[in-house]
Amino acid sequence: MTNESEYSEGDLRNTGLSLKHDREWDYELERIIEAVEERDAKKVGLQFPEGLKRRGPAVADDLRQLLPDDVTVMISGQPCYGACDLDTFLMRRTDVFVHFGHSPMKESDKIIYVPLFSNVKVTPIMEEALAELDGDEVGLVTTAQHMNRFDEMRDFLEDEGFTVHTRRGDDRLTHEGQVLGCNYASADIDADHVLYVGGGKFHPLGLAMEHPDKKVVIADPVNMVVTIADTDKFLKQRYASVHKAMDAETWGVIFCTKIGQGRWEIAQEILEENENAYLITMDEVTPDRLLNFGFDAYVNTGCPRITTDDGPRFNKPMLTPGEYEIAIGEKPLDELEFDTFHGTW
Amino acid sequence: MTNESEYSEGDLRNTGLSLKHDREWDYELERIIEAVEERDAKKVGLQFPEGLKRRGPAVADDLRQLLPDDVTVMISGQPCYGACDLDTFLMRRTDVFVHFGHSPMKESDKIIYVPLFSNVKVTPIMEEALAELDGDEVGLVTTAQHMNRFDEMRDFLEDEGFTVHTRRGDDRLTHEGQVLGCNYASADIDADHVLYVGGGKFHPLGLAMEHPDKKVVIADPVNMVVTIADTDKFLKQRYASVHKAMDAETWGVIFCTKIGQGRWEIAQEILEENENAYLITMDEVTPDRLLNFGFDAYVNTGCPRITTDDGPRFNKPMLTPGEYEIAIGEKPLDELEFDTFHGTW
Repeated sequence: MTNESEYSEGDLRNTGLSLKHDREWDYELERIIEAVEERDAKKVGLQFPEGLKRRGPAVADDLRQLLPDDVTVMISGQPCYGACDLDTFLMRRTDVFVHFGHSPMKESDKIIYVPLFSNVKVTPIMEEALAELDGDEVGLVTTAQHMNRFDEMRDFLEDEGFTVHTRRGDDRLTHEGQVLGCNYASADIDADHVLYVGGGKFHPLGLAMEHPDKKVVIADPVNMVVTIADTDKFLKQRYASVHKAMDAETWGVIFCTKIGQGRWEIAQEILEENENAYLITMDEVTPDRLLNFGFDAYVNTGCPRITTDDGPRFNKPMLTPGEYEIAIGEKPLDELEFDTFHGTW
Repeated sequence: MTNESEYSEGDLRNTGLSLKHDREWDYELERIIEAVEERDAKKVGLQFPEGLKRRGPAVADDLRQLLPDDVTVMISGQPCYGACDLDTFLMRRTDVFVHFGHSPMKESDKIIYVPLFSNVKVTPIMEEALAELDGDEVGLVTTAQHMNRFDEMRDFLEDEGFTVHTRRGDDRLTHEGQVLGCNYASADIDADHVLYVGGGKFHPLGLAMEHPDKKVVIADPVNMVVTIADTDKFLKQRYASVHKAMDAETWGVIFCTKIGQGRWEIAQEILEENENAYLITMDEVTPDRLLNFGFDAYVNTGCPRITTDDGPRFNKPMLTPGEYEIAIGEKPLDELEFDTFHGTW
């Protein structure tokens, strides 16, 4: 007899699906196959974020074995960095489109979102984080990949005597307590301390920037470290870019054409008020693509992560719309804020 | 009085248009402005190939000065390598879409093609090339940017006593005698010698590969050199890639989503016959994008220039569809051919 508890969540050895490849994660093949049958689909598109692309061929392989011969499985080769970043070309040309690794940003009949939750245990590092939490009120947030353990996180904190404040953000977010790299609305809660359970530096940094009055404690369950979000280094980098851009005569205003990353009104406003601003449309915003244009500075109305994470890779200053206002003297320097996105698309 | 002959073709100092920026080339602003007025356009998209992107802002500037205030001028930030490579996102979202630097691949009411002809003189280097042309029959081909001097080229050769053979290729080509990096149908002529007037190595190489029975003489009017197309080095490189790919167990089959670079039937055929082949869809085919997938080899059904020019930059062998057939043993090694594209899209 198979003891279910032997297997971690997502382990498919006990699902009865006959697969060609071993599986550590639950790609929810059954749900995909059902959708294909229901819609009598002939073309199935698969999109993986960068870190999961390597798994694409094996997932495609298993699907092909389980699906009728006349179904074509196509893998998106476009870069993908979030649910905001759907391969709309492939989506429009397939009957079923599966987006792996992110939770839904916008519901659609056509799209199947397969979130691929992490199996990593969260309570051990939360235990360590307790020392950083003063008082008995705490906000709790996490990322899509640990969302499957959100109740466990809350229970843990409550068992430790905390009143746990959680909130669902706006339409851009699927789950209570979920944060994105560009949306921290779920942290708008009534507590001075926020515990962020998850990896990466960008999410808690944005969190701390958006909520300068709160202490943001980071419990990283993958690397097993507890840190406190520190906005100083980040702010220095951003101020440096803003200062450099103050001398700019010509501005390239980037409108990102990715379905969930476009802010047309903001781009339009800048253009209307600055005759030395020029509108550039593009999907991937990369240093190479901008090099040829030769503007003195850029303002990116698309994904703020590109601006702040990749900023130093661009040969000219690249600012968020808020930073742009500071650079042209419309806003004082101390009003520098983290750029966030709200709503879906 | 202005003496017209002082000015080179395309010089706009004598057009009466009041421009903010000096112009060496004729961007045909008048034609664009007329189209905008005719269609009462509110959004105008501009697309430049990589080498001309730097001119984009000044062209946009002049257009904005000449157009009503409520017209938004948008510049495509997508990479662009040919008329096959239209920014369809921007095209669909603008009322007038101007594609600079290439001759039309497909006529469309929406698109204005502004070819930007070169002003370089062609007869001096043709004079030098005469020594390489035996007999009195010669084929003549050139690229889009020198097309404005095609009659002059023909006249020159006829004056030298040659019978000049020219031909319009297929639907992919606009002009008599024009070649593309992926189409040499205009060289299917009845002469043992073909004179190619133009720059770059890729065009004459493809020409020589497509017509191994002909001597292809290259007259480069920009660098002022005459050479003979030599396919040996190119062939060695290609054979090396094919040999490496012979050991591949898994294949990534790339279907390019660019409007003029897709060959769906070819991709589909490979998939149907090879169960270890997986379909990947993408617009830009770059080493970075493929790195994450981890296939043993790739076959690119998109632009052959990527495969052959950029091939060595990919960490796994990248083949054309014809080379793929050799690698899997369907065709003998000596049937290696240059990959070409026919028709429009």
